[in-house]
Amino acid sequence: MPQLHLLSPKGFRAGAVKAGIKSSGNLDVGLLICDSRATAAAVFTTNKVVSPAVVTGRKHISRGQLRGVVVNAGNANACTGQRGLNDAISMCKMAAGHVGCDPHEILPSSTGIIGHHLPMEKVAAGIDGAFADLGDSLEHALRFSDAILTTDLKRKQAAATFKIGKQTVTIAGVCKGSGMIGPRLALHATMLAYLTTDASISAPALRKIMARSADLSFNCVTVDDHASTNDTACVLASGQSATIRSAADLKKFAAALTEVSQSLAYQIAADGEGATKVIRVEVSGTKTELIAKTMARAIANSPLVKCAMAGNDPNWGRIVSAAGMAGVPFDPDKAQLKLQGTTVYRRGQPASFDAAALSKALSAKEVRVELSCHSGSEKGTIWCCDLTKDYVSINADYHT
Amino acid sequence: MPQLHLLSPKGFRAGAVKAGIKSSGNLDVGLLICDSRATAAAVFTTNKVVSPAVVTGRKHISRGQLRGVVVNAGNANACTGQRGLNDAISMCKMAAGHVGCDPHEILPSSTGIIGHHLPMEKVAAGIDGAFADLGDSLEHALRFSDAILTTDLKRKQAAATFKIGKQTVTIAGVCKGSGMIGPRLALHATMLAYLTTDASISAPALRKIMARSADLSFNCVTVDDHASTNDTACVLASGQSATIRSAADLKKFAAALTEVSQSLAYQIAADGEGATKVIRVEVSGTKTELIAKTMARAIANSPLVKCAMAGNDPNWGRIVSAAGMAGVPFDPDKAQLKLQGTTVYRRGQPASFDAAALSKALSAKEVRVELSCHSGSEKGTIWCCDLTKDYVSINADYHT
Repeated sequence: MPQLHLLSPKGFRAGAVKAGIKSSGNLDVGLLICDSRATAAAVFTTNKVVSPAVVTGRKHISRGQLRGVVVNAGNANACTGQRGLNDAISMCKMAAGHVGCDPHEILPSSTGIIGHHLPMEKVAAGIDGAFADLGDSLEHALRFSDAILTTDLKRKQAAATFKIGKQTVTIAGVCKGSGMIGPRLALHATMLAYLTTDASISAPALRKIMARSADLSFNCVTVDDHASTNDTACVLASGQSATIRSAADLKKFAAALTEVSQSLAYQIAADGEGATKVIRVEVSGTKTELIAKTMARAIANSPLVKCAMAGNDPNWGRIVSAAGMAGVPFDPDKAQLKLQGTTVYRRGQPASFDAAALSKALSAKEVRVELSCHSGSEKGTIWCCDLTKDYVSINADYHT
Repeated sequence: MPQLHLLSPKGFRAGAVKAGIKSSGNLDVGLLICDSRATAAAVFTTNKVVSPAVVTGRKHISRGQLRGVVVNAGNANACTGQRGLNDAISMCKMAAGHVGCDPHEILPSSTGIIGHHLPMEKVAAGIDGAFADLGDSLEHALRFSDAILTTDLKRKQAAATFKIGKQTVTIAGVCKGSGMIGPRLALHATMLAYLTTDASISAPALRKIMARSADLSFNCVTVDDHASTNDTACVLASGQSATIRSAADLKKFAAALTEVSQSLAYQIAADGEGATKVIRVEVSGTKTELIAKTMARAIANSPLVKCAMAGNDPNWGRIVSAAGMAGVPFDPDKAQLKLQGTTVYRRGQPASFDAAALSKALSAKEVRVELSCHSGSEKGTIWCCDLTKDYVSINADYHT
């Protein structure tokens, strides 16, 4: 099987150019276009401070149909007032002019520094160039996925396929995100994700599946617990392969969309600013999923836990105390904590373990933190990364 | 006026020794004793995981009377089960045996590593030595305040006096805290604080004033937002000077206790692990104090904001977006943000400012972040510190 990519689902083309918005001079304006009108759904940041791109995107997605997305990186167009709103709308108009559709059928995204007006001449030239560049090759998919990156060190992409009868449905996606990552996405992240599929599916079903899928993926990743003004995840369905209608088919579609989204979310944690490893925090045995996720999030966001992991230090007291301050029911006397499979704490007391061996095990690329609460049958997982001196360098030395 | 210290209020003695619990070999066991039974009040961590010292302390404070406190540093006696509880009770019994009081009249505290049993032989010898060392001199006060420190670089103390008629009432205090600081203290914080006063005051009044005072001081400081298993703040009133009874006198007492507590809390932020500066986050113009404090806390806990401050970077977008993700009402189009008195954001839009001059101003020892919401008349302040590579070193390189 050839390598799957963002443009493997039938009906999509993408293009990207270097428009001079990023100071690095890298690719920074991209277009992702569906050949015909796509069924679409998107989730956006729940931050009270939102980019005009998000304001515009929410409005444009409301009819459940899009022809495409236009993105720039290097400038978030956030906290930019009415002028910023006009700029976001202009980006849609420019893209729509080329594509030959209504501006409401384009979803705009921006990512980068907050509080600066977009250099609209560069943006306009970039959109012209990206349109001229449109194509459906692997190379086009990679160019688009690179154009949305900022402090990311790695390109992030994922894909899955499944069968409906004899027809193959493909779902693919790309995303960006490395710092300012603590998305709380809801219907109505600067994490950006774009997913494509050739399935045919109704807008209400796509909307519902997208929201749940984001809850199980992007909303489970944290680098610094900072929900951005621009976070956006959007899926477009071209309708060029099988129709998804029965409960069984919807379930297959949801599973594949969640798989792709979780892979993308995991890649964000792995490429977190300064990160040397992914920490997978799994809390189980709680009365509700929300309790499990709240505790997992408290552990994943504790700077003390994240620094201990950076130092390969099995300092489990920090983990148990982080769980205790989550503000949800927790009985430490029933709980058990495992690090990389080794029990370090059991029923309110320290367990004996080989600290040197465990420290070595913690130097892996992925660390598992498993807290069993023995108080119910629900569970939740959050992915985060360690906190290193490099995170501080990236965010203290980088100047506006 | 001679220098005021913890033992300036009449009726108190303290002692401290090097018992070998801290690996550094510094002072690590302390006793603070009141000559007669003191009226007392204390607030403790709201973490669900609490040290047996806190369990024991809550019980012992319930009658509103204490003869003293016994403290060890270097070991938190947390997550240590029944054996840990027995050890905390033993500490009280040993201290009470020397003093000649009921063990219930002693409040125990421990601070240090979590998950290790106390070396009780060393603790016992330390309590013997601390009792033999008891005295009321400045030197004794300083020795006690040093004995409670862990990763702190500086000793923390404060005092205030006020007049009731012709009588002078003195309130003094010491505290420790540098990392694992995000206290949520309530009646029923590893930050430890001990306050002494020679006022005579009823237990219910002392309890009420102590809780409010902690809310306005210790509960307003954050280093890493990690509420410890051992946080405790305790006040003892010897009753050897004026009686506090009228509403006016209670108000004076509350103001002085809050002043001392705020000074101690500020010193914790200033000595935060790796900190180079204090950040004073003041949110005003909100409908409630809780909304203001919730927003101020979201700003103060944002690693992105704290790193920007470490780098003297006026990257105000991080501050506004942190306020927006606090989960409380916030209208960015009404808001104004000042850094060191310079307006950087006004009504949804960037304000023009001299970035180089402002960066220079941010290199001060104290940085003021003032967010005016123009949506009400309430306000709240949180003190925090910047996030530096040294914080990561201290917490990643320090091994259990």
